Amino acid sequence: MSAPPPTVADGPLALVCGGGSLPLAVADHVEARGRRVVLFLLREAADPKDYAGREYTPLYVGQLGKLARIARTQGCREIVLIGSLVRPSLWGIRPDWLALKNLSRIARGFRGGDNHLLSNSTKLLEEQGFTLRGAHEVAPEILAPEGALGRLRPTADDHADIEFGLAYLAAAGPFDIGQAVVVAGRHILAVEAAEGTDGMLARVATLRAERRIRAPRGVLVKAPKPQQDRRFDLPSIGPNTVEAAARAGLAGIAVIAKETVVAEPVTLAEAADRAGLFVAGVRGSQG
Amino acid sequence: MSAPPPTVADGPLALVCGGGSLPLAVADHVEARGRRVVLFLLREAADPKDYAGREYTPLYVGQLGKLARIARTQGCREIVLIGSLVRPSLWGIRPDWLALKNLSRIARGFRGGDNHLLSNSTKLLEEQGFTLRGAHEVAPEILAPEGALGRLRPTADDHADIEFGLAYLAAAGPFDIGQAVVVAGRHILAVEAAEGTDGMLARVATLRAERRIRAPRGVLVKAPKPQQDRRFDLPSIGPNTVEAAARAGLAGIAVIAKETVVAEPVTLAEAADRAGLFVAGVRGSQG
Repeated sequence: MSAPPPTVADGPLALVCGGGSLPLAVADHVEARGRRVVLFLLREAADPKDYAGREYTPLYVGQLGKLARIARTQGCREIVLIGSLVRPSLWGIRPDWLALKNLSRIARGFRGGDNHLLSNSTKLLEEQGFTLRGAHEVAPEILAPEGALGRLRPTADDHADIEFGLAYLAAAGPFDIGQAVVVAGRHILAVEAAEGTDGMLARVATLRAERRIRAPRGVLVKAPKPQQDRRFDLPSIGPNTVEAAARAGLAGIAVIAKETVVAEPVTLAEAADRAGLFVAGVRGSQG
Repeated sequence: MSAPPPTVADGPLALVCGGGSLPLAVADHVEARGRRVVLFLLREAADPKDYAGREYTPLYVGQLGKLARIARTQGCREIVLIGSLVRPSLWGIRPDWLALKNLSRIARGFRGGDNHLLSNSTKLLEEQGFTLRGAHEVAPEILAPEGALGRLRPTADDHADIEFGLAYLAAAGPFDIGQAVVVAGRHILAVEAAEGTDGMLARVATLRAERRIRAPRGVLVKAPKPQQDRRFDLPSIGPNTVEAAARAGLAGIAVIAKETVVAEPVTLAEAADRAGLFVAGVRGSQG
């Protein structure tokens, strides 16, 4: 599907780390391939404790000039931005000269979806001569494989719900809506928009507790938006998604294989087995 | 669009009343046309206090045989079911012989959307020789007119959001999803499914309070599902919808003219003016 992952020949990789455990997993996978990683930690997002014993440069979100300068000095031609990023306050951005010169372009990102801030920054970095890569391109290990991750598998009924959910997401795609939906018995219980996947799952849990949902268990179906830049904005699931799905009384979670990031596959599979849920990588409805 | 409303010539009308103020408004409109109304009040739904001084027959949801018998005795050939109905407990249904004989068909209704219970009951009543009419067919006064109901009108930006919302609802229609969506700046903030319109608006209010929505005010767009039986399941709005939309910080509400029930148009227009919102009847995206 995609080109083989870059190797040592591509030189060291500049890895800009947001929050969560994913950036460190990516660093480990890339280093396991023998490629050097130059770490940048986004302040107020990445937790320095997780990087104890490693060398890194702390960075405010707006310090694009600093990032470019150090990455260049270290011989990096490729940059990966990865990890969660709560929208920083304007003060937390601390734009340096390069960012300041382009602040209106960056600020525009704030009006859109979660990752527009990042994708606007990436354009600036590309203009500085860097190549922006998706984390899954340099560490394909983080992508969901096809098939079940844990012990359980979807039933025929679950598969019918998954197909229904994928068809809905494909139809809703042109409207740039959220990437997830909860389907039970070929009936849509919830659609994700601004509230995010966890918010949607919490709602299903509440509606079920209030007995306002009488449908059978149901499935969380997640897929990338048709128009999203798959380098920076792949859907992702983690053990917390499994727990939220369990609280919502669901039978399982379906994601698109090779187009979904699984932050901690082993922990996630364990959580799924413990909760009695399936987590399955499936083919997208458009192949 | 629809046939002229029935008149005295059609004989008295059997009006089965659920909760809310709409049933009484329908009774008044029908009587104002000189047609006699025979009232049935659904227990645990209609509030008998609202019907003080009127003659009526109390009815459990399952007493279809009793309904058919009395309606026939009173010379009614047409029946209208109107008003809200919280799904009754199985005990609260109290099926009589006619209902009991068909309980599996009625029970099937519980698995679907809100009004499947009613529409399954209507089939039984039709088999008993009655014609089931929509409340708006006998009292077209309850339908939203085209244009603004209160003082305010949608701006050009609001109209763009309305068109976007209608296009989304048309695309999502085949999936039998909820009838409403919140759009701000051509960006979908929330989609209604099992939580209902009020639940969705409460979510938008919360997300805005948490500053997780930075988009401009936005519009609630409501439309009938393509496949719904317009006799029994037209979308409806009331003063409470206006208040929920105001709490969500919206600029206004758009509904499909002539295909949306407005329970209390005067109270609703006053509420809209007070809250600084527009409420507009628009043409559907498919004409």
